Amino acid sequence: MMKIGVADTTFARVDMGSIAIDELKKVGTGFRIERYTVPGVKDLPVACKKLFSERGCDLVMALGMPGAQEIDKVCAHEASTGLIQLQLMIGKHVIEVFVHEDEAKSEKELKFLTDRRVREHALNAYRILFKPEELTKLAGTGQRQGFNDAGQLK
Amino acid sequence: MMKIGVADTTFARVDMGSIAIDELKKVGTGFRIERYTVPGVKDLPVACKKLFSERGCDLVMALGMPGAQEIDKVCAHEASTGLIQLQLMIGKHVIEVFVHEDEAKSEKELKFLTDRRVREHALNAYRILFKPEELTKLAGTGQRQGFNDAGQLK
Amino acid sequence: MMKIGVADTTFARVDMGSIAIDELKKVGTGFRIERYTVPGVKDLPVACKKLFSERGCDLVMALGMPGAQEIDKVCAHEASTGLIQLQLMIGKHVIEVFVHEDEAKSEKELKFLTDRRVREHALNAYRILFKPEELTKLAGTGQRQGFNDAGQLK
Amino acid sequence: MMKIGVADTTFARVDMGSIAIDELKKVGTGFRIERYTVPGVKDLPVACKKLFSERGCDLVMALGMPGAQEIDKVCAHEASTGLIQLQLMIGKHVIEVFVHEDEAKSEKELKFLTDRRVREHALNAYRILFKPEELTKLAGTGQRQGFNDAGQLK
Amino acid sequence: MMKIGVADTTFARVDMGSIAIDELKKVGTGFRIERYTVPGVKDLPVACKKLFSERGCDLVMALGMPGAQEIDKVCAHEASTGLIQLQLMIGKHVIEVFVHEDEAKSEKELKFLTDRRVREHALNAYRILFKPEELTKLAGTGQRQGFNDAGQLK
Repeated sequence: MMKIGVADTTFARVDMGSIAIDELKKVGTGFRIERYTVPGVKDLPVACKKLFSERGCDLVMALGMPGAQEIDKVCAHEASTGLIQLQLMIGKHVIEVFVHEDEAKSEKELKFLTDRRVREHALNAYRILFKPEELTKLAGTGQRQGFNDAGQLK
Repeated sequence: MMKIGVADTTFARVDMGSIAIDELKKVGTGFRIERYTVPGVKDLPVACKKLFSERGCDLVMALGMPGAQEIDKVCAHEASTGLIQLQLMIGKHVIEVFVHEDEAKSEKELKFLTDRRVREHALNAYRILFKPEELTKLAGTGQRQGFNDAGQLK
Repeated sequence: MMKIGVADTTFARVDMGSIAIDELKKVGTGFRIERYTVPGVKDLPVACKKLFSERGCDLVMALGMPGAQEIDKVCAHEASTGLIQLQLMIGKHVIEVFVHEDEAKSEKELKFLTDRRVREHALNAYRILFKPEELTKLAGTGQRQGFNDAGQLK
Repeated sequence: MMKIGVADTTFARVDMGSIAIDELKKVGTGFRIERYTVPGVKDLPVACKKLFSERGCDLVMALGMPGAQEIDKVCAHEASTGLIQLQLMIGKHVIEVFVHEDEAKSEKELKFLTDRRVREHALNAYRILFKPEELTKLAGTGQRQGFNDAGQLK
Repeated sequence: MMKIGVADTTFARVDMGSIAIDELKKVGTGFRIERYTVPGVKDLPVACKKLFSERGCDLVMALGMPGAQEIDKVCAHEASTGLIQLQLMIGKHVIEVFVHEDEAKSEKELKFLTDRRVREHALNAYRILFKPEELTKLAGTGQRQGFNDAGQLK
C-alpha cells in the first residue's frame, strides 16, 4: 500500500495538515498517511526527507505559510530550493503548497485561499501517484490552485 | 533506439508538450518519446529525473510557462537551478523551454511565441543527440528561440 | 543518550550559545550538549556537520546574529542554504536561530528578542527529539519565536 | 597528453569557441582540444560535465554571452552556480568566460571586449594546467580580463 | 603535522595570500602552508577542493577581493555558496576572507582594511585548528574582522 506524507508547520496560521489529510481521504483510497509537524518552512526539507527515509512515504505534501516580510520571502526560497534538491536526491515528488500571507487581502480570504489551495494540491498529489493520465489531459490548460484557473490561450 | 522525454505542466496556458512531440516527429527519426505532465515548473526537476531513471530517456525537454508575478520568477529560478543540478547528477541534457507570461504583449503573441520557441528547441534537442556538428556550425551566431535571431556581430 | 549540538559565533553580540544551553537544561533531560563556536554564520554549516559527524549529535541548534547591511543578508542566506543542504545530507534537524540586528528598534530590544527566540527554539529542538506530538498539536496555530505569536486565523 | 575542453553556445554573438582555440594554440603546447557547442549558457554545465567524463578533459573553458535583460542575468547566475558545483564534483577547473551584452557601449566594443577576454582567459587556463607559479607571481596585482587591469594598490 | 591552505587570486588588488602566510607564521607553529593562486573568486571553490584533496590541507583560507559592481556581488555570492558546499562535502573549514572594493572610502583604507581582515582571520583559522576553546570564550562578543569590533550588548 502507498504512503503519502504530510509535513506542516506550527508557524502557519491555518491547520494546513488537517485540511490535506481531510481532502486526501476524500479523493481516493489505496494509501496511508504519515504526518510530521515542524516549526517553520525551513524545517520542511529535512522533515520530508525523514518521511521518505524513515517512514517509507512515496510522495510528500509540504505545507507552509510564509509571512509577508522580505525575510520570509527569502526563507520560502531557501525552503523551496531544499525541497527540489531533496526530490532529486530521492527521485520522488514533494508537492509544495505554500500560501504567502500577502497573497490575500484579508484574513478571511487568506483562510479561504489556503483551504482551497491545499485541497486542490491534495488532488494533484493523488493524481501523480494513481492517475497520472489525468494530469496529461490537463496539460497546458492554465490550472491554478486556490485562485481561479487562468485557462488555455485561444 | 534513443528516447526523448517531454515533461510539461498543467499550469501552462498552451499545450507545450503536444507541440514538442509534434515538432520532434517532424525533425527526425531514431527515437521514441516519453511524456510526463506535472502541476507546475517546480515539479519539473523530479519529473525529468524520473524520465531519466525510470523510463530510460537520453535527453529531456522541460516545458513550462512561469507567470508574470515576482513569485513566479522565483519559482522559475528554483526550477532552473534544480534542472541544472539534475543534469550534473545524470550527465545528460535537459533542454529547458520556459516562456514567461510577460514576454509577450498579448495572449495571441504569447501563443505564437510559445509555439515557435518549443519547436526551435525541439530542433536543438534533436541536434544535441543526433547532429552535434550542426550546433558547432552555428556557434556564436546569436541564435534565439521564439523571437528573431540576434545574429553575429560584424 | 541523545546529544544536542549548539553551534554559535563570535560575531553575535549576545552569547546565544550559553542561553541555548541554559534553556535546554530547563526544558528536559535525557540528552547531553556539545558546543562549538566559530567566527560567523557562514562557518555554521560546517560546524554543524562536525557536530553530527565527529561528535555524534542527533540535532543541532545553529545560532547567529546577522548584521543589518545588505551584505549581511546575503551571508545569512548563504548560511541558511548550507544548513538546509546539510540537513538533507545527514537526515537530521538543524534548528536555525538567526536574529537579524535590524529586527529590533534598540539594543535593549535586540537583546530581549535574542534571549526569547533562542529559548523558544530550544524548546522546539527538545520537542522534535522527545515530544513530536506536541508540535503536531500546535500545527497551524501561528507560533512565532521571539515576538508574540500571530495566532490561528478565525 | 593533457586535454582542454572548449564549451560554447549558439546564443553568443561572437564565435568565442574559435577564438579560444586560436589563442590556446598560440600560448603553448602539450595538450589537445575538445570542442562542444550547446544552445545557451544554461546548457554549459552539463556540456562541461560531458567534456570531463566522456572526453577526458583536464580543464574546460565555458564560454557564453548572456543578454542584457534581467532574465539573462538570472540565467547567467544559474549557469555559474552549476559550473562551480560541477568543479566541486569533478575536482577540476572550469574557466568561466562570460561577456554580458551590456558590458560594452557598442557592438564594436562588445566584439573587441569578447575577443580580448577570451584570449586572456585562454592564457589563464594554460597557466593553471602548466605554469601555476606564474599565477602566484601575479597574486594580488588586480588583473582583469578584457578591460585594463586595475593594478595593485599602493 | 597540520597543513593550512591559502587560496588567493590575481584579481585582488592586494597580495592577500602573502599577508595570510606572514600572519599565520606569527600566530603559531605546528603546521605547514600550501598556497594556490587562481584568477578570480569563482575559481576559489575548486582551488580549495584541490588544496584539501590533492595537497592534504586540514583547513583552507579563501582570500578574495570582489569588485564594486552588481555583477561582482553576484560572483562573490556564487563563490561563497560554493565554498559552503565544499565544506559540507569535505567536513573541514574554509575561512572565507572577502574584502569588497566598496567597503572602504579610499584605496588607502581598502589596503588597510584588507591587511587587518586577513590577519584577524588568520588568527581565527589558527584557533579553529589549535585553540577552539579561545573562540568559545569569545562567543557572542561581537567580534569583527578588519573594522572595529561591535562588542557585546549590555
